[in-house]
Amino acid sequence: MSVFGSRWVHAPGHVRELPGDAGLPEGFRAAGAAAGLKPSGDPDVGLLVCDGEQPSSAAVFTSSSTAAAPVLVTRERCRLGSLRAVLANSGCANAATGSRGLDDAAKTQGAAAAAAGVSEAEVALASTGAISHYLPVDAVVKGILQARGELRREGDRDFQAAIQTTDRFEKRANLEVELSSGPVRLCAQCKGAGMISPRFATMLCFVETDARLGAETAQLLLGTCVARSFDRVSVDGQLSTNDTAILMASGSSGVRVAADSEDELRLGEALDALLRGLAVMLVADGEGAQRVARVLVRGGGQERVESVARAVANSPLVKAALHGGDPNWGRIVQAAGGALPGPDPLAIDVWIEDRQVCSAGAALPYEEAELARAVSGLEVEYELALPGEGAVTEVFFSDLSADYVALNAHYTT
Amino acid sequence: MSVFGSRWVHAPGHVRELPGDAGLPEGFRAAGAAAGLKPSGDPDVGLLVCDGEQPSSAAVFTSSSTAAAPVLVTRERCRLGSLRAVLANSGCANAATGSRGLDDAAKTQGAAAAAAGVSEAEVALASTGAISHYLPVDAVVKGILQARGELRREGDRDFQAAIQTTDRFEKRANLEVELSSGPVRLCAQCKGAGMISPRFATMLCFVETDARLGAETAQLLLGTCVARSFDRVSVDGQLSTNDTAILMASGSSGVRVAADSEDELRLGEALDALLRGLAVMLVADGEGAQRVARVLVRGGGQERVESVARAVANSPLVKAALHGGDPNWGRIVQAAGGALPGPDPLAIDVWIEDRQVCSAGAALPYEEAELARAVSGLEVEYELALPGEGAVTEVFFSDLSADYVALNAHYTT
Repeated sequence: MSVFGSRWVHAPGHVRELPGDAGLPEGFRAAGAAAGLKPSGDPDVGLLVCDGEQPSSAAVFTSSSTAAAPVLVTRERCRLGSLRAVLANSGCANAATGSRGLDDAAKTQGAAAAAAGVSEAEVALASTGAISHYLPVDAVVKGILQARGELRREGDRDFQAAIQTTDRFEKRANLEVELSSGPVRLCAQCKGAGMISPRFATMLCFVETDARLGAETAQLLLGTCVARSFDRVSVDGQLSTNDTAILMASGSSGVRVAADSEDELRLGEALDALLRGLAVMLVADGEGAQRVARVLVRGGGQERVESVARAVANSPLVKAALHGGDPNWGRIVQAAGGALPGPDPLAIDVWIEDRQVCSAGAALPYEEAELARAVSGLEVEYELALPGEGAVTEVFFSDLSADYVALNAHYTT
Repeated sequence: MSVFGSRWVHAPGHVRELPGDAGLPEGFRAAGAAAGLKPSGDPDVGLLVCDGEQPSSAAVFTSSSTAAAPVLVTRERCRLGSLRAVLANSGCANAATGSRGLDDAAKTQGAAAAAAGVSEAEVALASTGAISHYLPVDAVVKGILQARGELRREGDRDFQAAIQTTDRFEKRANLEVELSSGPVRLCAQCKGAGMISPRFATMLCFVETDARLGAETAQLLLGTCVARSFDRVSVDGQLSTNDTAILMASGSSGVRVAADSEDELRLGEALDALLRGLAVMLVADGEGAQRVARVLVRGGGQERVESVARAVANSPLVKAALHGGDPNWGRIVQAAGGALPGPDPLAIDVWIEDRQVCSAGAALPYEEAELARAVSGLEVEYELALPGEGAVTEVFFSDLSADYVALNAHYTT
């Protein structure tokens, strides 16, 4: 599956997608092991190691105040600009586990550091799975030891398998990016919208490149691109306790990307396309999802357009209509009106798949069957114009289905 | 069905519930007519008239900036402190209809005023049904003329039928309230959580009393009690374009309720219990709902407890777990952490049906099967304590079911 499969994501001219078995960039090895955290017996402990001599890295985390132990430990104890390894597990989120959860996370961090031959502060942790369960430390350590023996450049698929939960398809990509002094590789493994027990969805993303770049550049690129991708999607509006995205650069290609250079821009464009592609794939694989929609909102005031876009994307009524292939735009107007409360009528314009259905808050005539056909595809676009100018935003979201409810309503442990 | 059927709603000692056929308080007449707005042929135009000599009234409306035409016309053109009639219809929300919608609403207001023998500014309008459709004015006028001929004190049931949409049961109550100088009556007709096409949920509530009170008292009582009832419920977190609650007092009992008097307090307690009862009934009749939950949040900062309570009540993950009878409190912690983002861990305590499951953000041991039984009833209570003291709030909410999705996903016009 191409990471550029959506009409909303385009590969820049200097970016080429490689086959799925192209392996990790030079300077990286990965592996996955089945340590028994998942009742299914599927892989659940992943280890990713960077062997570059002067590696750099960057990380972003959930903003939740009930962030999981691995997030807290990584954010507070790691050298985020020079990470050399990632230990990831599925099957247990290690969230809502208090100080014992922090101790458990630290133990596995120590084991991963020993296995990778790096210091503890160079090992990032990431977990996904059921909240409120304590981490089975011994099992994770066993998984680390097994994974250590299997580390290889072609291990990205195994690593990916170890971080997946109920994901229906792989969200992984291998790109080649042409820079001024030669090509570099850009790889990513991502999971999202899945659950274990089934319990809870989490987004994890790990990106590797063999370009040589400074930690500030890595943080700038990752921060900018996450804001335009993973920050712009919603399956159910629920902020995870475990969301983590990490970019690691081995420098092994010898191709240097200087700050404020043309190549920084080119690598940024590639990373942007990559993360947007993965983000849309994540929505497409949303729990029970059948369609992906984009709501584009423009008008005056960034906070206003943002608030309306989020309200539309998270409205269960809009999402249920999207699921049913129902061009029921009254719910879009309702969601916008709820997001911007106040006595003055909101002069909102609405387009669905380029057909205007509402002008200054009032219904326009349209051919209902024709519009119903337009919203029956795999991707649907809504465009909203609010009064004023200068601000614009977008959010990608999935539909709300009976499968979402079934996945989340029934207890299976 | 008693309005005091929930464990969270108690009838004060001076309040007695009357049979459903007790009729409206003295000074009120009502009727309902089938005018063809509903494809089913069910009643869809309701008329309520107050014949008191010195009536008073109060009204509260949706805060949506895409409020429907009947809301705009009533809020801006009516004498809200001395209303003498209500024209309500189901089958069409007259929302997202711009200036034509305002004209249409005004035409029906004029017809209702003529039918009731009052001025236009004394007629409140309320509509519920599909958004983005224009009001069939001729049909509504026909309904008004028919209803006029059937106005009577026992017409509250017909009026109720005319405002219902997909409500599965009547939300109506007749109370007698003992005041210091004699008894007064308090009646209400309410609809909510229903749809027409099926399209959209709206809350309407009309309350009548034969007490004699000033308009300021009416506004104070209604505002206070709505804030503690209809403002504290959520079926799907979606603010309606048409929400309207109106209190009318005919004064026909001769029992006067003075401002700042003991009787004002007693009437307020009765109205409070009535509206809370109706609000919980509304949640119980939420689209596809099988259970009602209350989330009680206490801690420091009213905005913080409010934000957490809303986030829990509107979390599709929490609501799906409620549906499945799953005591999956990790999602409650997740919703709270998302509502209060920030780097510092949130020391949250969680109780489910009086059993503490989380202390300072960390899981406590509990007997899973026993807890699962505790959340399998028709009403489930969650209690959350945040750090700090002094603030407390509650929100009542329904579960998220496949039926909710089915009701809202499929287009049937």
